[in-house]
Amino acid sequence: MTAINHNYLELQGSYLFSEIAKRRTKFTQENPNAEIISLGIGDVTRGLPEVVVKAMHEAVDELAQPGSFRGYGPEQGYDFLIQAIIENDYKARGVDIASNEVFLSDGSKCDVGNIQEIFSQDSIIAVQDPVYPVYVDTNVMAGRSGKYNAETKRYENIVYLECTAENNFKPSLPDRKVDLIYLCYPNNPTGMTLTKDELKVWVDYARENNCLILFDSAYEAFIQEEDVPHSIYEVEGAREVAIEFRSFSKTAGFTGVRCAYTVVPRELKGLDANGSSVLINDLWNRRHTTKFNGVSYVTQRGAAAIYSPEGKEQIASLVEYYMTNAAIIRDGLASIGLEVFGGVNAPYIWLKTPQGMDSWSFFDKLLSEANIVGTPGVGFGQSGQGYFRLTAFGSRENTEKAVERIRKLSL
Amino acid sequence: MTAINHNYLELQGSYLFSEIAKRRTKFTQENPNAEIISLGIGDVTRGLPEVVVKAMHEAVDELAQPGSFRGYGPEQGYDFLIQAIIENDYKARGVDIASNEVFLSDGSKCDVGNIQEIFSQDSIIAVQDPVYPVYVDTNVMAGRSGKYNAETKRYENIVYLECTAENNFKPSLPDRKVDLIYLCYPNNPTGMTLTKDELKVWVDYARENNCLILFDSAYEAFIQEEDVPHSIYEVEGAREVAIEFRSFSKTAGFTGVRCAYTVVPRELKGLDANGSSVLINDLWNRRHTTKFNGVSYVTQRGAAAIYSPEGKEQIASLVEYYMTNAAIIRDGLASIGLEVFGGVNAPYIWLKTPQGMDSWSFFDKLLSEANIVGTPGVGFGQSGQGYFRLTAFGSRENTEKAVERIRKLSL
Repeated sequence: MTAINHNYLELQGSYLFSEIAKRRTKFTQENPNAEIISLGIGDVTRGLPEVVVKAMHEAVDELAQPGSFRGYGPEQGYDFLIQAIIENDYKARGVDIASNEVFLSDGSKCDVGNIQEIFSQDSIIAVQDPVYPVYVDTNVMAGRSGKYNAETKRYENIVYLECTAENNFKPSLPDRKVDLIYLCYPNNPTGMTLTKDELKVWVDYARENNCLILFDSAYEAFIQEEDVPHSIYEVEGAREVAIEFRSFSKTAGFTGVRCAYTVVPRELKGLDANGSSVLINDLWNRRHTTKFNGVSYVTQRGAAAIYSPEGKEQIASLVEYYMTNAAIIRDGLASIGLEVFGGVNAPYIWLKTPQGMDSWSFFDKLLSEANIVGTPGVGFGQSGQGYFRLTAFGSRENTEKAVERIRKLSL
Repeated sequence: MTAINHNYLELQGSYLFSEIAKRRTKFTQENPNAEIISLGIGDVTRGLPEVVVKAMHEAVDELAQPGSFRGYGPEQGYDFLIQAIIENDYKARGVDIASNEVFLSDGSKCDVGNIQEIFSQDSIIAVQDPVYPVYVDTNVMAGRSGKYNAETKRYENIVYLECTAENNFKPSLPDRKVDLIYLCYPNNPTGMTLTKDELKVWVDYARENNCLILFDSAYEAFIQEEDVPHSIYEVEGAREVAIEFRSFSKTAGFTGVRCAYTVVPRELKGLDANGSSVLINDLWNRRHTTKFNGVSYVTQRGAAAIYSPEGKEQIASLVEYYMTNAAIIRDGLASIGLEVFGGVNAPYIWLKTPQGMDSWSFFDKLLSEANIVGTPGVGFGQSGQGYFRLTAFGSRENTEKAVERIRKLSL
């Protein structure tokens, strides 16, 4: 038999969503008439914006005829979409990004999962805790995690940056040397953000300590407050130390359509084995062109449509829909004395479970007494124990109904 | 600075297509009136089949409304497409494949590039020469290649299986122990195939020598002859030793739409560090669900449409169009005494350059004297020196015109 990549065996089971499904199934079998509302999964539910639908139809028609057919496109993405991104997502905020710094892909999950490949096997990575599991798992697969400690429920070589109510979900700087720092703002799962000054502390730290920030801003479109940066490049010096990941998934309803992008500034440098410097942008370009063959043309046309004036209006109204849901959840829960976080600049509401319940006990209570499915915070990491995530992606009707049910609980 | 994956520095420049573009540009600048015909790139040119266009329009409309909207789908692909694949691509040929053995993706380039991740860093890989460069480059990036030898133009740890006219493009078995064997049939770039008996030799070898075959059959739809297997699983015992890669790119014109799939049988086993066996299917499933988020729903609906009765007719007529081009090229070139290979079960024609010219000299001659762009065989590996690839993906008119021009050359 052929030898396998044994690092895979260090992966822990993807327990969270399967356990949720198991408990939900058991409950519905025992309570077939219960009308369950799910505010658990981070997936959108509204239809695609009209401009996107129109653009995708037109693109399909283009592909139908030899005269307008398009086959393989540039792996990095079509210029019409890259230019729209640069103009609207960056230049409009005073940030200059060059066209060879933008890499379109079929999803941020792929990009944040693949980015570690271009760095040394010995890199020490730091992640926030709670955390989106892909950052951790992809480094486990690459052999950077060390052993899993079943007691602490953490990997020995990964540096965990704790985010809890005690530090207002703003992690401390690493207490030892790290190479790659994954930061996600607005944060999944906590929904919390950093101000520009707070983010600058991280950029300065990375510049002084020769490390690199992998900045996941998949939720930037939900930012409502003035002082919250949409891009890490709004912070001075970030072009020297940060890669940024953006997605159309939540903004434009593209979770089933698949489009995202990654920005890799030409200032970013890495060190080769001889101590010479190498452009990280060149490495990522090589990775991207060798292992990826471009985003569907139809999808790219759909994505570009959101940057038209009507597109911007339609996106704004989608965001407003979900953020109104977020406010309904946030205010409703706060009104009965629950401690709630997030939901202001992000579609996620992170709540402290009442009376020190653990995350799974609260899950069971919510399911059995209110017929609501949410996500236990501990599923995102040890610092999520005693927390719980609700999402604003449901319909208005279900969101309001869910909040009414929670308000009636004795907590 | 953060240390990089230094294996990337062993990669050789992706010289082939940039050099082609450079020479073409120079020629057109010096000869602005030349009407250049490209038979160089392996990309389709006809429009999408009508059934695909219809299905994609319908899928876009589904996504437009909250009631029929679909967000994240299963990472492995929707069941409607997996079942259609199993029924039509396998069961119809007497091959049983289970639904958890099929993994949809956005392209075979991604799958053949990513598959090496689940195997040991120490794996010895064997590739055909000439070869699709992605097999080699992705193993270089993973650190399996050893150093590049500028004299032999080969990597020291990769086993090259030479395919030339001398062995009728049927490589000999490896002369030393290997772990992973990349085979591509119908072959890109040579257009040649193996019979079922010839392929069985490889399957038997893999079973006896504990290695695994990575079988790229992206061009199977072009097979015309009876005795050529469409799937490696038509060969007895292959489920124990082979992973198969298939694509909708050339079959259905999906080079710009992006859909492919990989079959990983549950019989396939690998060895972990303790000498226990592990299911390769489980490893790939974990890789796929961790680093990928599913193929666009619109694309999957389009792909499924080709399995309808009208879809099959439309695909057959597309294949016939390109294979008629192949016959025109093949017969035209043979009629003036050129030695031609392929083009019978594949859209690629591989020709021996006349009078022992090297590949690039023939490229220059064809460009300057016939204004035709093809692909120098040496770009695919050292065993491609003295060969040249033409593709059947052009329009009928251009294909006929190109052949006429070549017939008039003094060769």
